[in-house]
Amino acid sequence: MLARLTTPHDRLRELGITLPPAPPPAASYVQTRLVSIGDGRALLYIAGQISREGERVLSGSCPDEVSVEEASRRARQCALSLLSQIESAVGLDTVVEITQLIGLVLSADGFGDQPKVMNAASDLLVEVLGAAGKHTRVAVGTNALPFSATVEIAAVAVVRTG
Amino acid sequence: MLARLTTPHDRLRELGITLPPAPPPAASYVQTRLVSIGDGRALLYIAGQISREGERVLSGSCPDEVSVEEASRRARQCALSLLSQIESAVGLDTVVEITQLIGLVLSADGFGDQPKVMNAASDLLVEVLGAAGKHTRVAVGTNALPFSATVEIAAVAVVRTG
Amino acid sequence: MLARLTTPHDRLRELGITLPPAPPPAASYVQTRLVSIGDGRALLYIAGQISREGERVLSGSCPDEVSVEEASRRARQCALSLLSQIESAVGLDTVVEITQLIGLVLSADGFGDQPKVMNAASDLLVEVLGAAGKHTRVAVGTNALPFSATVEIAAVAVVRTG
Repeated sequence: MLARLTTPHDRLRELGITLPPAPPPAASYVQTRLVSIGDGRALLYIAGQISREGERVLSGSCPDEVSVEEASRRARQCALSLLSQIESAVGLDTVVEITQLIGLVLSADGFGDQPKVMNAASDLLVEVLGAAGKHTRVAVGTNALPFSATVEIAAVAVVRTG
Repeated sequence: MLARLTTPHDRLRELGITLPPAPPPAASYVQTRLVSIGDGRALLYIAGQISREGERVLSGSCPDEVSVEEASRRARQCALSLLSQIESAVGLDTVVEITQLIGLVLSADGFGDQPKVMNAASDLLVEVLGAAGKHTRVAVGTNALPFSATVEIAAVAVVRTG
Repeated sequence: MLARLTTPHDRLRELGITLPPAPPPAASYVQTRLVSIGDGRALLYIAGQISREGERVLSGSCPDEVSVEEASRRARQCALSLLSQIESAVGLDTVVEITQLIGLVLSADGFGDQPKVMNAASDLLVEVLGAAGKHTRVAVGTNALPFSATVEIAAVAVVRTG
């Protein structure tokens, strides 16, 4: 009963997390799009969030330039940016569920621990949103990402609008 | 008329296919998420399924470590895992259509036959689901995938829920 | 007021653009799938469109084989193919919004200007569709794409069906 009354903002406070400002788009696009699907709910599409600390992009490939531990910390930063975008667009309290995460890790050839890196993002979403934070996931490596960011994560969520 | 009465399970039997058990998630996520969109239908998001045989990941990049023929066979394995996830979540009989496939092939630099590899997955979905199995597709190569799997495929489907 | 009366076809004329024929699928899939979401609207999923000029694939990685400027021009070609697919499936006049763009740029290791390349596609969508063309975006680099195409872009849109 009490668990149900804990809000995402309560959990952020308990975790000692202050959400960063929602980063503006890096180019000719928007950060979120809302698609009504009936019953006072909507799909919220969120653009790819790259790893950054304030204005600075956290760049470099894993594990040759950036360790798995550091890449994981950067994946968590991306998850924080996703939460900031949701908060800015519709408010974290409206989240019904995170439906899909698409996570990309800048990877040296042969690196295969993208799931470990992405877990840091996945775990944060569950810590903040509870069961609503559990999502399907597509974890992928790649040789090149915008601004050579170590991690990029995009998402689709279901939110209440009515 | 008779064709309409053929179920996915009938077709699996005719093809001599026994679906593998739906693999559990490899990390902090869930395999499927269901989003109601009215009229007794829902979008079913399915997490990325990597090429595997039972517990063993089928790894290696195409075509230098794994031939196009073998990679195709592995893409088909991913499609079987997708079908297993659908069966486990909502039952194959409820599938209205496979809407989107996102397919990733672990690729040597310069390899461009991802469509041929992915066709093995696409064809299986149509063999089992008939017209409902026809889907839009994003076929991509990459230098790095989880556990160095040869193929990873995620999907979105429309299913009946009411 | 006048702006609201300008149709996508008007804008294409003003821009001097003739849409290319919607390319057929390169393999075992379909180019579009329509998912009704109520209120006379539907999600339109569009398969990955690779850079091409007529039948010829525009191939090569950026920036070592193809300059950023040329890659941008090719991203714009992909956006034209997306518009052709929408026109062919449901008509450009029905577009409520472009919801999500997934853009892949064939990239040399260390290349990070995918956002600049993808802007050419994003800008074209806004030029033709106005505010409805503004979308969320996932821009990614990769070492391998179908037929070694320089750019591949897939999309999800919301369209009016009723």
